[in-house]
Amino acid sequence: MSNLISPRLPGGFYELLPQDQKVFDVMVSKISQVYSSFGYEHIETSALELTEVIAAKGGEGADKEMYSFTKGTTDLSLHYDLTVPLARYVSQNETQLTFPFKRYQIQKVWRAEKPQKGRYREFYQCDIDVIGKPSVRMDAEVVAVTIKALNSIGLSPVTVRIANRKILQEVLAGIGVTENFSHIVRCIDKLEKVGSKVVSEMLAAQNLTSRQVESILAFATIQGTYAQVVSQLSDYTISEETMNELQKLSLYLTEYGISDQITFDFSIARGLDYYTGFVFETKVVGMEDVGSIASGGRYDDLCGNYSKSSYAGVGFSIGLSRLFSVVSEHISQAILSGDLRMIVIPLKDEYYQHALGVADNLREKVASVEVLYEAKSMRDQLSYANAKEATHVIIIGDDEVQQNKVTVKDMKTGEQKMLSVEDLMRDFSVL
Amino acid sequence: MSNLISPRLPGGFYELLPQDQKVFDVMVSKISQVYSSFGYEHIETSALELTEVIAAKGGEGADKEMYSFTKGTTDLSLHYDLTVPLARYVSQNETQLTFPFKRYQIQKVWRAEKPQKGRYREFYQCDIDVIGKPSVRMDAEVVAVTIKALNSIGLSPVTVRIANRKILQEVLAGIGVTENFSHIVRCIDKLEKVGSKVVSEMLAAQNLTSRQVESILAFATIQGTYAQVVSQLSDYTISEETMNELQKLSLYLTEYGISDQITFDFSIARGLDYYTGFVFETKVVGMEDVGSIASGGRYDDLCGNYSKSSYAGVGFSIGLSRLFSVVSEHISQAILSGDLRMIVIPLKDEYYQHALGVADNLREKVASVEVLYEAKSMRDQLSYANAKEATHVIIIGDDEVQQNKVTVKDMKTGEQKMLSVEDLMRDFSVL
Repeated sequence: MSNLISPRLPGGFYELLPQDQKVFDVMVSKISQVYSSFGYEHIETSALELTEVIAAKGGEGADKEMYSFTKGTTDLSLHYDLTVPLARYVSQNETQLTFPFKRYQIQKVWRAEKPQKGRYREFYQCDIDVIGKPSVRMDAEVVAVTIKALNSIGLSPVTVRIANRKILQEVLAGIGVTENFSHIVRCIDKLEKVGSKVVSEMLAAQNLTSRQVESILAFATIQGTYAQVVSQLSDYTISEETMNELQKLSLYLTEYGISDQITFDFSIARGLDYYTGFVFETKVVGMEDVGSIASGGRYDDLCGNYSKSSYAGVGFSIGLSRLFSVVSEHISQAILSGDLRMIVIPLKDEYYQHALGVADNLREKVASVEVLYEAKSMRDQLSYANAKEATHVIIIGDDEVQQNKVTVKDMKTGEQKMLSVEDLMRDFSVL
Repeated sequence: MSNLISPRLPGGFYELLPQDQKVFDVMVSKISQVYSSFGYEHIETSALELTEVIAAKGGEGADKEMYSFTKGTTDLSLHYDLTVPLARYVSQNETQLTFPFKRYQIQKVWRAEKPQKGRYREFYQCDIDVIGKPSVRMDAEVVAVTIKALNSIGLSPVTVRIANRKILQEVLAGIGVTENFSHIVRCIDKLEKVGSKVVSEMLAAQNLTSRQVESILAFATIQGTYAQVVSQLSDYTISEETMNELQKLSLYLTEYGISDQITFDFSIARGLDYYTGFVFETKVVGMEDVGSIASGGRYDDLCGNYSKSSYAGVGFSIGLSRLFSVVSEHISQAILSGDLRMIVIPLKDEYYQHALGVADNLREKVASVEVLYEAKSMRDQLSYANAKEATHVIIIGDDEVQQNKVTVKDMKTGEQKMLSVEDLMRDFSVL
């Protein structure tokens, strides 16, 4: 009849096959469980927003990168991050939310970027944020929960690199630099990529003296444990209050048992303008070339575009699709743990109904139990069982029906045993 | 500074507050678990599709209802159902999938419909489909798994009403009606809404004799158990093969233990053209006025637009957002079961670090444990605990620290007990 249409996705979009989706789902579920265990509540926001509302503040996604369109007389946009929607959601529902509002949100976002390896136009972000009155305890908690979330999927250890915009600002003031803060932040942020020579040129172009440039670069190379950086920071003018915050953060992170996964590192600056305090970036030990897989920081005014109420907050975002694309092989073995998955094989067509009953019993205690619809050859059935990653097949033939038993075959070892369903249900450790 | 932007969503869009999201998530998780337990695999497809690809077949969502737009030179559309994307996904990945391909998919879809109560423009659908060679065992399974999924969230009993397009076609042929099948299907489908008088007029307008109209209406009122409908169907010309399928379906559904939740009902016809065999609609007993909350059926050629391979299938779709909007109150008590959620309250600011340690221990066995950042008044803390639906608060004051214990307060009964954390960890039944 008509011509076939080639089944394909738009460029820069992708989908997972079922076996990868399973790993992805386990990853999401483990991360969610960690967030939940710290009292973070799950929310989802609308994927489509009014353009006027969501474009209020130019965030990470510039207008050009937004998927915007008009339907009828309404200008709509797909959200390009989860922070602007959070600000809108908090402002819209402020009377109905409990503060400090601790939420996690795991959703697709859309950006019309140039696709690169591990970067897509539709991808999952996974954000936690705490909104309320400012407290360094919030910073410590989001760092702790993010590290524990990453550890829970088998990424262990990770390194969270922490810096602080306030310290940077005070350091700059101390050496007489009070202008072009955003630009200097962006220069420092480029250090790792382009090296100190290029950055010192970029800084010098900003009317800084060579001494100031030197001093900034020296500051930006400070890194280490709390004890190590404290002694190095003593060369600079930093207020007692700010140093106290650094100390408290370090103390709390020790209490959370994650101090070995923390590095203070003042080459971290983060591109976004809205950060005002601590900023975080993350690396996976052994996969440093992948770059930061999670990042975040403290901001002083989340809802400024939407509400007169002042909400400070701190957030940490994991680029989940990117993380998955680089670590899925590494983590799939670790997180797909040993639950039982069974295929029931009735050797004769007339045993199908009996097989349904056996399967129904097993489902009470087994993650997944299937009965194939067609009485295929044993070979076909075993190949199906392999493809579905079954751990066992349950064979029902003449002997089994006569003796009211089943034969269980371990798909890994090939071992077979004849058992009553009752015995099997009583103790799966016999498998 | 600048004017505030009113934080709001586009018309017909909605979001859940955290406490409702929790119920929604439990609902999704219970339904997913049932699907999984039958070996259905989870997939997600891209929310944005090439318009040319997704608009290949006018499905339920007509062009006007699609959110379509051009980005650069590419025509894109948000998917309006999960069936067309499934067809595209199966065709695109056919060499990498295992057949029969049993998948479930729980995603938002977008339709620019006129919003009504319980109907939104962005909403969740929850679909299962089996794709492979046709077998009535597939139909039985999707009915069983859907009923068990609905039962798992406390909707029990439900009624799945089942009819069969093939039977209708044979019945029509038997009374000399061989044309306008789609139209007659749509007339029958309206019976429940507009009554038999209007439908008989609609049918008469199709050049049918009054005898034919009468016969069709009589057929469409047949309903009951398998035994009941079989005797009534004997008045019509239906092939042995088709009657055998009906019998087998009934037998399998009995084996699944759900025959009491099944009604054969030939007033069910379903609007979509692509159904070719059994069709299903669902009602919740006691909430019949809500209408069908899940529906589906058998189709002979899913991938016809994309692939030369012929794939038959059968699917069952739950309108999840709609279901949730009508039953959330009813189900929230039933499905938010008794897991422990705790708030740790350090009575003095200097006990905060100690509280972190206590919380960390408890998290091993407790669903959610929080420590509030600020040492607020006890009243504020308890009101926070109430808002977060905590089951217990853990109080740490002078006595507790001295004796290395904690005080546990039951938020329901108000009862308090002083316990060591070790005792608590050993046996939560003391609470």
